[in-house]
Amino acid sequence: MLYLIGLGLGDAKDITVKGLEVVKHCRRVYLEAYTSVLTVGKEALEEFYGRELILADRETVEQEADNILKDADLCDVAFLVVGDPFGATTHSDLVLRAVKLGISYRVIHNASIMNAVGCCGLQLYNFGETVSVVFWTDTWKPESFFDKIQKNKQNGMHTLCLLVKMSEKITVSRMKSLFVPNKYNFYPADIKVKEQSLENLMKGNKIYESPRYMSVNQAAEQLLTIVQNRRLQGEEPEVTESTLCVGLARVGAMDQKIASGTLQQLSTVELGGPLHSMIIAGNMHPLEIDMLKLFAVDESSFEDNECQRNT
Amino acid sequence: MLYLIGLGLGDAKDITVKGLEVVKHCRRVYLEAYTSVLTVGKEALEEFYGRELILADRETVEQEADNILKDADLCDVAFLVVGDPFGATTHSDLVLRAVKLGISYRVIHNASIMNAVGCCGLQLYNFGETVSVVFWTDTWKPESFFDKIQKNKQNGMHTLCLLVKMSEKITVSRMKSLFVPNKYNFYPADIKVKEQSLENLMKGNKIYESPRYMSVNQAAEQLLTIVQNRRLQGEEPEVTESTLCVGLARVGAMDQKIASGTLQQLSTVELGGPLHSMIIAGNMHPLEIDMLKLFAVDESSFEDNECQRNT
Repeated sequence: MLYLIGLGLGDAKDITVKGLEVVKHCRRVYLEAYTSVLTVGKEALEEFYGRELILADRETVEQEADNILKDADLCDVAFLVVGDPFGATTHSDLVLRAVKLGISYRVIHNASIMNAVGCCGLQLYNFGETVSVVFWTDTWKPESFFDKIQKNKQNGMHTLCLLVKMSEKITVSRMKSLFVPNKYNFYPADIKVKEQSLENLMKGNKIYESPRYMSVNQAAEQLLTIVQNRRLQGEEPEVTESTLCVGLARVGAMDQKIASGTLQQLSTVELGGPLHSMIIAGNMHPLEIDMLKLFAVDESSFEDNECQRNT
Repeated sequence: MLYLIGLGLGDAKDITVKGLEVVKHCRRVYLEAYTSVLTVGKEALEEFYGRELILADRETVEQEADNILKDADLCDVAFLVVGDPFGATTHSDLVLRAVKLGISYRVIHNASIMNAVGCCGLQLYNFGETVSVVFWTDTWKPESFFDKIQKNKQNGMHTLCLLVKMSEKITVSRMKSLFVPNKYNFYPADIKVKEQSLENLMKGNKIYESPRYMSVNQAAEQLLTIVQNRRLQGEEPEVTESTLCVGLARVGAMDQKIASGTLQQLSTVELGGPLHSMIIAGNMHPLEIDMLKLFAVDESSFEDNECQRNT
């Protein structure tokens, strides 16, 4: 049996009791390595689980899936994923390979960023399509995620923006593969991917750069730039400097931080270390507004007309 | 400290290790009663947690929140919620009351139906607004959720349909409060509400009817009726008998069941006991289609043009 087990979002103890039991009895336990954005590392997990963990990075999952699945028809193998196995990251490929090999699988769910963002008080019900925001380079500054945000907003929906992580030297082609405008977003996995520098990639060296995480500040700044660009193009963007947003850092961890305010305010708010996410609010119910006020950079931002619209 | 703790979706062991530790040390532990759609009851939870649980039904939460919060500034109180505390059901009201009373709170997240539906292989990224499907009465047959599904589909998005539970004798006004067309859906809590019969409601008796859960079959039948209605009105609905859908039963439980197929097929598929949910698929990536085929009522349904659109 292949077990896909969600670890949740905080630390080692966010695994479920059921998940922990499975981890303890499995023959082999893999940890999806490009995920390790828990507040603790592999060693802390190993100590708490009392098990050695085999790191399975993107390469391993894609190229060595057969190793992971080896004998999983005869013994139990666990594949651990930060968040939920079918949250922001999809592990459909591993499931499909398993089924093809006649291996049964089971999912042990947990919280993922996709549902835990509800902690800010915005209703999960009222979210539209989720978008990924990627780092711009000098020559590549995609804006299509902005169109999705605007479409959600026009429909009154909130937008969850996942902020992509990458090394400074990531290749442009790699980055483009993360972000395919007008196609399907299957790349949130890359929030957490190990990245090779262009030089090492060309040399075939498996040396990875230290990661760089996008902050809410950076995402807000990119959005503000797009707002300006659109105005220069004669558009009247739906999302503006005064649009209400939420910045979330380390959701589910002990030092989780949430800040709500205008897009302008979020470009300077201090939320600390990764992982950050951001929400662009759509229409809000009074109860949603009351909740967001708990995290307000400046409560008066909530007194204008925008958030009262349609309520 | 007030702890809002998600219990996940399956049984007693789906609580997180962290959540269980908190439950064990809290002075009082409340179980949100209108949630109990785990596969186990209160007694099984009490046995596993080693703690007595105080049932807190809708009435208690709304009218007796002060009891729940009593002394929570001096001691620790836990409020247990099936799924995630900010999943389909919102507990913002309790949080806001706590903050007003100067009581700190913490959320211990878990899987909820809002993210666990990803197990069918459809990307959470690509879901639009979530809708609730309610039981029709002879005189009240709302169709506005259908418009939301169609809007999502036009935008290429999937729609999660939460299927509402209620007693057979629920009052129409109560049902209308569950489902407010063109306004905000704050009522998924009511999937799990204890219902009074009209007679008992009028007499002021606190006698609740045994609940009736909507099945995927029933939801599909209602949708098929709306499709027919729309055609009679001269419309060409976007959602039809051959639209691909997913029926999910008891997600996260050992006997979870998933079936994919056309809306017509789902009107007769057998998924067993509650709780059921349903997804109306939007545009699909080939990987999403491959996953859905694992659960196909009839794989040939996936060979037509519809699901290939935009891929």
